[in-house]
Amino acid sequence: MNVVGASVRRPDALEKVSGRAVYTGDIELPGMAHGKLLASPYPHALITHIDGSNARRLPGVFGVLTRERLTGMDPYYGADIKDRPIIAMERARFQGEPVAAVAAVDLETAEAALDLIEVEYEELPPLTDSLKALEFDAPLLHLSNLCHEASYAWGDVERGFAEADRVFEDTFSFPMVYHYALEPHVCIAKFNGDGLAVWSSAQHPFLVRAELARIFDLPLSKVEVTVPYVGGGFGSKSYSKIEPLVAALSREAGRPVKLALTVDEAARMVRRHSAHCILRTAVRNDGTFLARECRMVLDTGAYADNASTVNDRCAHQVAGPYVWPNLKVTSSAVYTNSVPAGSFRAVGGPQAAWASESQVDIIADALGIDPVELRMKNLARYGDEVRKGERPLNADMTGALQQAVEAIQAGAEGRQTKEEDALDRQGPSLRSRTTGAWVKRGVGVACSILGAGAAAASTALVRLHMDGSATALVSSVEMGQGSRSAFGQVAAQSLSLPLDQIVVIASDTVAVPYDRSTGASRSTTMVGLAIQDAAREIKAQLLGLATTHFEAPEEALSFDNGNVVFGGESISYGALIRQMFGSAAGELMGRGYVTPGTGGLGQTPILWESAVGAAEVEVDTRTGAVRILRYVSASDVGKAINPKSVEGQDEGAAMQGMGHTLFEELVYEDGQLLNSNLVDYRVPSFDEVPEEFETILIENEDGPGPFGAKGVGECAITVVAPAVANAIFQATGVRIRELPLTPERVWRALRQEETASDGADVSPSL
Amino acid sequence: MNVVGASVRRPDALEKVSGRAVYTGDIELPGMAHGKLLASPYPHALITHIDGSNARRLPGVFGVLTRERLTGMDPYYGADIKDRPIIAMERARFQGEPVAAVAAVDLETAEAALDLIEVEYEELPPLTDSLKALEFDAPLLHLSNLCHEASYAWGDVERGFAEADRVFEDTFSFPMVYHYALEPHVCIAKFNGDGLAVWSSAQHPFLVRAELARIFDLPLSKVEVTVPYVGGGFGSKSYSKIEPLVAALSREAGRPVKLALTVDEAARMVRRHSAHCILRTAVRNDGTFLARECRMVLDTGAYADNASTVNDRCAHQVAGPYVWPNLKVTSSAVYTNSVPAGSFRAVGGPQAAWASESQVDIIADALGIDPVELRMKNLARYGDEVRKGERPLNADMTGALQQAVEAIQAGAEGRQTKEEDALDRQGPSLRSRTTGAWVKRGVGVACSILGAGAAAASTALVRLHMDGSATALVSSVEMGQGSRSAFGQVAAQSLSLPLDQIVVIASDTVAVPYDRSTGASRSTTMVGLAIQDAAREIKAQLLGLATTHFEAPEEALSFDNGNVVFGGESISYGALIRQMFGSAAGELMGRGYVTPGTGGLGQTPILWESAVGAAEVEVDTRTGAVRILRYVSASDVGKAINPKSVEGQDEGAAMQGMGHTLFEELVYEDGQLLNSNLVDYRVPSFDEVPEEFETILIENEDGPGPFGAKGVGECAITVVAPAVANAIFQATGVRIRELPLTPERVWRALRQEETASDGADVSPSL
Repeated sequence: MNVVGASVRRPDALEKVSGRAVYTGDIELPGMAHGKLLASPYPHALITHIDGSNARRLPGVFGVLTRERLTGMDPYYGADIKDRPIIAMERARFQGEPVAAVAAVDLETAEAALDLIEVEYEELPPLTDSLKALEFDAPLLHLSNLCHEASYAWGDVERGFAEADRVFEDTFSFPMVYHYALEPHVCIAKFNGDGLAVWSSAQHPFLVRAELARIFDLPLSKVEVTVPYVGGGFGSKSYSKIEPLVAALSREAGRPVKLALTVDEAARMVRRHSAHCILRTAVRNDGTFLARECRMVLDTGAYADNASTVNDRCAHQVAGPYVWPNLKVTSSAVYTNSVPAGSFRAVGGPQAAWASESQVDIIADALGIDPVELRMKNLARYGDEVRKGERPLNADMTGALQQAVEAIQAGAEGRQTKEEDALDRQGPSLRSRTTGAWVKRGVGVACSILGAGAAAASTALVRLHMDGSATALVSSVEMGQGSRSAFGQVAAQSLSLPLDQIVVIASDTVAVPYDRSTGASRSTTMVGLAIQDAAREIKAQLLGLATTHFEAPEEALSFDNGNVVFGGESISYGALIRQMFGSAAGELMGRGYVTPGTGGLGQTPILWESAVGAAEVEVDTRTGAVRILRYVSASDVGKAINPKSVEGQDEGAAMQGMGHTLFEELVYEDGQLLNSNLVDYRVPSFDEVPEEFETILIENEDGPGPFGAKGVGECAITVVAPAVANAIFQATGVRIRELPLTPERVWRALRQEETASDGADVSPSL
Repeated sequence: MNVVGASVRRPDALEKVSGRAVYTGDIELPGMAHGKLLASPYPHALITHIDGSNARRLPGVFGVLTRERLTGMDPYYGADIKDRPIIAMERARFQGEPVAAVAAVDLETAEAALDLIEVEYEELPPLTDSLKALEFDAPLLHLSNLCHEASYAWGDVERGFAEADRVFEDTFSFPMVYHYALEPHVCIAKFNGDGLAVWSSAQHPFLVRAELARIFDLPLSKVEVTVPYVGGGFGSKSYSKIEPLVAALSREAGRPVKLALTVDEAARMVRRHSAHCILRTAVRNDGTFLARECRMVLDTGAYADNASTVNDRCAHQVAGPYVWPNLKVTSSAVYTNSVPAGSFRAVGGPQAAWASESQVDIIADALGIDPVELRMKNLARYGDEVRKGERPLNADMTGALQQAVEAIQAGAEGRQTKEEDALDRQGPSLRSRTTGAWVKRGVGVACSILGAGAAAASTALVRLHMDGSATALVSSVEMGQGSRSAFGQVAAQSLSLPLDQIVVIASDTVAVPYDRSTGASRSTTMVGLAIQDAAREIKAQLLGLATTHFEAPEEALSFDNGNVVFGGESISYGALIRQMFGSAAGELMGRGYVTPGTGGLGQTPILWESAVGAAEVEVDTRTGAVRILRYVSASDVGKAINPKSVEGQDEGAAMQGMGHTLFEELVYEDGQLLNSNLVDYRVPSFDEVPEEFETILIENEDGPGPFGAKGVGECAITVVAPAVANAIFQATGVRIRELPLTPERVWRALRQEETASDGADVSPSL
């Protein structure tokens, strides 16, 4: 193995740093119109009248999409439940919901046309509090405000609680956050003859294809979804977002239409589910976990999107990486008059881990047990049945925890030494230390597992050209995660070819074979396996040609660097192809299929993604400001195909987690979103990056993916908030159960702490 | 068979008639520059000095390509011999040859920059007459002016002539003509990271890929050639034309560059070889053909392009569709200071058939034998070895001739009746008839075969989607010939699917598998077979899935309209795929390979394309104007996959042949091309279309292609000129041996006829 495992340069690097990479927004089609949206100013209102005729008469306007134009098609779409209208029908359910769309010769004309659309609204009382959604007199957004209920249980929770020495009950809340991909949603749609072509910043081109085929009643072969480079997704571009609207607008305008959302609009397309969670945990005095009970409410906003998936997965993750003899989780996803929530990196994970891993430290503190020790005691071991009926844990959690703790301590100690701190060193356990009168330091950890929701449904095609170079065609979207590097490495290794002879092509549903989606940490595993399978088929063909060429049996042949070798002789792949085609012509194709029938992939989850986060923080007790001095992220990745890319994914997940940990929150007032821009919505900047960031990759080559790889890039986001909150507790003795940990919130908690009792003793009933 | 054989609507029809179809010229890339060429004003000159530095300093200019910039690459290219410089190096060899190229922000700036390039020339004597190219004191264009010599012989020609009753010797000439595709050459090139992407109006994307990879020393996997719709090719867009220059200019400019040639420039890119031919034929008095000897000179212009192929094929076609016991052909392709000549529909065929089929009528007239009878006597029969060592004739020439003659006579007789002509009807033989004092009518025929130069090197990929619809990926270029219809029909029939579920995608070398080229009448046969092969692989997979589903053996299963049937039960293709992938996901892929090893394709030619043309003309003896009243084209097409498309191809070829027959000729004076525009260069207009046009398709389902299809669309061009000249002779008794048959030339011949003897008696020595 010389290519797999090397941190080779990304093939998209040069294009991206030189500004030549093409994103959807860069594409111009002949005759293309530009779209703009008219949005509801109200979070909840009947649309009593809408008339686009004046706008239609404006010169330069090619089409105005109003609700009555959505004929001959299904005007509703959605990932799990098809309840979201392409544009609002009888009523608008969130502020910013499109009620009309215009396609015009340019954006100025489109904007002028928006002003000419007549709309009359009748305001309805908005439902803005998810905890009130299921109350008897709550305004009803749909037939019910309960979008989806997930429950998940085993053992006998009642008995677990009865047998416990101690029971802990805490309430946690997690904010609405926005993905803030640097590229807002962009889509171009064009009806072509009897088909539809779409270019979109979409993570799931094949799911978009299926949705558009359904909406417009077309065979899949007549819908083409092309995804150029995507400027970040993180789930915000999962499933169909603006594609149905843009396609309908193109149909209305009779020409290609581009719609590029502003950040303000994109923040009204999708967000992460905010959550409220009451968590009860029963333990023995020695720290043994006996039972856990959880009641979760997720705010899914105005429409369902993939709420049932998120809700199921959130419920699934409340158990954390521990073996629970008894468990009971109920989670409700409820509608409110806010932006619809959907997939976001590690769907459901941060909400669940925030509660679970904060409470582990609360328990440790109450029992007087070191939080690392408490985790070590209860962590599932390799092979344990960590969720009933599912694949046993195939990740080394205790190893990851051990390494993360050692690394964070070494860092903290190094700092101490370096600063010639006058304080005594406090040994290997994780305890708070004080660096100054008002600046307090602490270390915290958290750990988590994520049952990758990766469906075993990928294909690949490898083309071996007559000069021996190769093209691997896969449908993973390159949205910054570096999948093309990894696939190229897998292809090179599997084909026994130099990496520089390989090109990876992705993401045009017409040309490139099926892949379910880019998300759920699935690509390296699933698509990587498909590439390996395709390479096997190519090699079988090469062997067939070479047995004829050498008049030798297959067993006597081997592959080496683009050649088939027989004893002291060899022939290049290209020469074998040229022989087959009788001239300088031709190519070989190899197909790769990954299905639930592919060895071992029938059981869910396909893999357990894992993460340990350890944070050393500094709290300024005068201001409440929290600085993360050092962060260690440890993940069992099986095998890092491209270690630098894997570290990048892991660091990226952790950094994004620092956002919702420290600053990020979509702020609503009376159903109006107030901070949908980079000035008012804080994402981590370079100032806020930890000075020291260490990623530990545990590689036992035991994953289901190619060369033992596992998925990565999601789970690390889940542990940041509890690790930081646990570190704040270690530093200050203050426990905060609500995110983000803004200076104001920390400051208030510090003030409250001076007067109040320990929050762990507060015991609201479930 | 319900789809194959039906004249279904072309899938590109709606886009094309509505103006929405995208051609290369329609494409705009972000940051794209626009290119212009600086051309040599001299047909032959040393470039003593060239300096682009003033042009480079002009604001808005991104790059100026002058000869010294062609470093780190091979500056020469060409289909058969790589002698054509990307831009002229030490000297220019034809008027209009590019000596520099500019890439600028817009065309105006690029044109302004052209004026700032300093060039100094030293004029050299031009070689303008191909017949003088091999003379001792001719100006030398390359190491030799002999570009290529082809010879082709069997039997004992000397003995054949010695045994003859009569020997006929005639000299014929064929003009330089231009393809006049409505879309001139357009190309966009873009260096991407470490690869090169090109969009081009190219007929042979994979040959362009190979040429660019060679020139820039890249693996094939890193060169992408995309071909959108092409607005006609006819061979003018074969191999590489402007692509190497545009790629080099993009490299120089550091950004994408588009170069769209004007018609004036495109006419200086490639043309058909003009020809001079001395043809000697030995016959018995009963009309039996004994021997033929031919000396041909083809003018290949300044550079070779594919001169050796054209020259070989022209020599190959001098024998016509007859069995010659003795044959000897020598053909020389020579360089001159004119536009390089290359492929043109039925390469080499019109030049050879013009001589051969004119002389057959000369012989018939001299022997007093009906020209149809003379042909019937000598025509090769099905299975005859019509060329030594090659595939026996697999076309029904006598049947086609019989049907064409009957059809042209029926038409002529119908006209006579309709006009209540006072003249006597003259029975079934083809003889002149007079319709008025100065208007003379006549009927003529000609027949021809073309050994299709189609290489057996095609592949296809068929993707069957989870809703049972399918995409066929092939690399044939859709340049108006309707290949996508035919491929869709072959795919539908082979997959047992409704046609409306199938989409055919072509022509992006990155995404779509290998095909050697679009030309030589090969696509329906070669690519059609590849699609069938791919469909077989799909069906094998479906059978595998269905045997599991039904628990039934393969033999008990059958296919019907998107379903696999077992007794009274059936399951759709889509359902089988969804079962395999365990959800609404996935697809099947089937690969198709066509190589010389594919059953029966090892022998050349793969098929004999055939044509019979019969023309009824009217000659105005006062003006020399010739009108084609009725034209019948008969071809043995094996099986017409889409009869309307096949007729369109056949009529198109005949119509294009009427161009060089009646008007078309590139006129040079002292090496300057005078008529490179639609005003001065006449192509047939609707006024000149025959009033009656009939296409007869002979379908014995005996071709090597899918469902017994054969190639079509080329051979019909070869017979028009001799059929019309033979008809003029029948009408007026005047034999013309030089094309085009302009009114002036016909008028002069008529005047000369009044005073001179029969040209058939002129006997220059070979």
